[in-house]
Amino acid sequence: MNRFWSNTIRNISPYIPGEQPRDKKYIKLNTNENPYPPSQRVLDAIRLEVTGDVRLYPDPEAVGLKTALAGFYGLRAEEVFVGNGSDEVLAFCFPAFFNPGDTISFPEITYSFFPVYAELFGVKCKTAPLNDDFSVSAENFPPDAGIILANPNAPTGMAIGLDQVEILLNRFSQSLVIVDEAYIDFGAQSAVPLINKYENLLVVQTFSKSRCMAGLRVGYAMGNPGLVEGLERVKNSFNSYTLDRIAQKAAAAAVEDREYFTETCQRIINTRENTAVGLMELGFKVLPSKSNFLFAAHEKIPGEALLFKLREAGILVRHFKKPEIENWLRISIGTEEEMEIFIEKLKDIMI
Amino acid sequence: MNRFWSNTIRNISPYIPGEQPRDKKYIKLNTNENPYPPSQRVLDAIRLEVTGDVRLYPDPEAVGLKTALAGFYGLRAEEVFVGNGSDEVLAFCFPAFFNPGDTISFPEITYSFFPVYAELFGVKCKTAPLNDDFSVSAENFPPDAGIILANPNAPTGMAIGLDQVEILLNRFSQSLVIVDEAYIDFGAQSAVPLINKYENLLVVQTFSKSRCMAGLRVGYAMGNPGLVEGLERVKNSFNSYTLDRIAQKAAAAAVEDREYFTETCQRIINTRENTAVGLMELGFKVLPSKSNFLFAAHEKIPGEALLFKLREAGILVRHFKKPEIENWLRISIGTEEEMEIFIEKLKDIMI
Repeated sequence: MNRFWSNTIRNISPYIPGEQPRDKKYIKLNTNENPYPPSQRVLDAIRLEVTGDVRLYPDPEAVGLKTALAGFYGLRAEEVFVGNGSDEVLAFCFPAFFNPGDTISFPEITYSFFPVYAELFGVKCKTAPLNDDFSVSAENFPPDAGIILANPNAPTGMAIGLDQVEILLNRFSQSLVIVDEAYIDFGAQSAVPLINKYENLLVVQTFSKSRCMAGLRVGYAMGNPGLVEGLERVKNSFNSYTLDRIAQKAAAAAVEDREYFTETCQRIINTRENTAVGLMELGFKVLPSKSNFLFAAHEKIPGEALLFKLREAGILVRHFKKPEIENWLRISIGTEEEMEIFIEKLKDIMI
Repeated sequence: MNRFWSNTIRNISPYIPGEQPRDKKYIKLNTNENPYPPSQRVLDAIRLEVTGDVRLYPDPEAVGLKTALAGFYGLRAEEVFVGNGSDEVLAFCFPAFFNPGDTISFPEITYSFFPVYAELFGVKCKTAPLNDDFSVSAENFPPDAGIILANPNAPTGMAIGLDQVEILLNRFSQSLVIVDEAYIDFGAQSAVPLINKYENLLVVQTFSKSRCMAGLRVGYAMGNPGLVEGLERVKNSFNSYTLDRIAQKAAAAAVEDREYFTETCQRIINTRENTAVGLMELGFKVLPSKSNFLFAAHEKIPGEALLFKLREAGILVRHFKKPEIENWLRISIGTEEEMEIFIEKLKDIMI
């Protein structure tokens, strides 16, 4: 505490990210990173940028990257916004589309950064209950509030179909619906094809998961040009140059390597399904995941106890201290080999 | 305009950065970049990071970079905050240290981003008049407001001494005083040595000017640990990972090359003084600059006319459409050779 702190930061509970250990002795299944390196084209693109031009500001409009993304998704460049990780893009949504005192709604269990953004920008929160099986239903959202929704949801990994997203967009046609698709490329249906049909839809994605680039901090939003312009107005009132020269080029190169992207996503999906079988064979409940992680619980061992035992065995996973899910663990999908070791270590623990 | 825009972004006038041309045909003296490449150590540090580890999140606490900066300035790591360019660091200061409705004060002519941040975060502004010679005086600030001050000031380039900064800190001891020292390394006196004496002092600096790294977006703040913790609380409520892996390592390497830093700053100071003489010989008024740019006006040619003529001659400089300074141009200091060409082109224009 300090006498110069604003009321906001006196009262806020900042988001706590998963641990980033400084040594490499762990198998790291705790922050949903991709176990595979980025495309060789990404590394080549970075090397090309290691020149004296580092002295020059980057393109503040990131035209090259926006054009690459627009090409990939069949959109126009003015339907794409880019930022310093999808966390920044999500944060910008609050001052762009909500007045202080407005209300935003999100599922009761979801990405725990949503209520923190809301508090930072003075926006009220109303949570929508989940069904007993952790699924999200359109009818559970309150009227007269904006909506932010992770699909697949975190930390459950469960996705809703495009039909459900459309029900939301129609039912709340006067409200903005923000769909955070950080994990969309691991088997769920993206809402991007609905952008031209619904002007209340904004889709947010990231390079940190399916593009193997968490270390370079690139995220993006896609929606109609008016929504994108709203985000640009916040960005240009906050930081003219949010994305550095290297990140812009690296991200564009990642988008251009469609083959590597498809192949690594498919490998992770296959490993996820194998790991789910292994967990169920050990007696775990495992939610049906369309993401690069599994959410699992065992009736005989509390989540936190398992977290510590796995850590002792050299494996980091994530546990959330929220009562409804305190018995569950979120397990990022590593390489096939890492997940085999994970299942072996679990077997040792369960004996 | 879009029906989902918040009141804030309907009313705000975003900051407009200087042009970043996509071709290289211009001598670029318009955005105060350093004309010299970053230290070879910076480029080497970047190359070392081009590995598969780009898939992993960066250290959210940037311990390595904070430690390097603390070492350079004789501070402790907990007295240093780092962010995605000093623009982000300055933006974070507003929700960290001001409630909506509070008042912040800054000189009437200064970095034009200050009022934009204030508007984004609902903070009121009161400007402090400058003296007739564009200098800043402590007695011109209103009581009962926080203070943000660029030293050297932008776009005048004029600095105040540490004695003046101390008068401000004492006179407004109940207010936070933020000193934006983006240009401090080109001959002015930094307030960093006062940090341990005044708990109402926060100093903000950047890697974009004296460290030749505008392309990588790194800025930092230095102050007592309570102020730094306030900024961390905003950052952790906004974006857990603001600085990517490469930027962290590159910036730490830049700090470690003290010799290159000192040498390039001195070269720019020498070129600035030579350029000022050249301008005065052509009949320009030139303000006494302690920055890497000059602010100059000629009674015979309006600033905007000169801007366009220089552009035709292949040279970009910066002009601000504010009535009090509309006859002035801000000229970034390039290499000695670039500035000789600049003076030659000006001679042609003035004939």
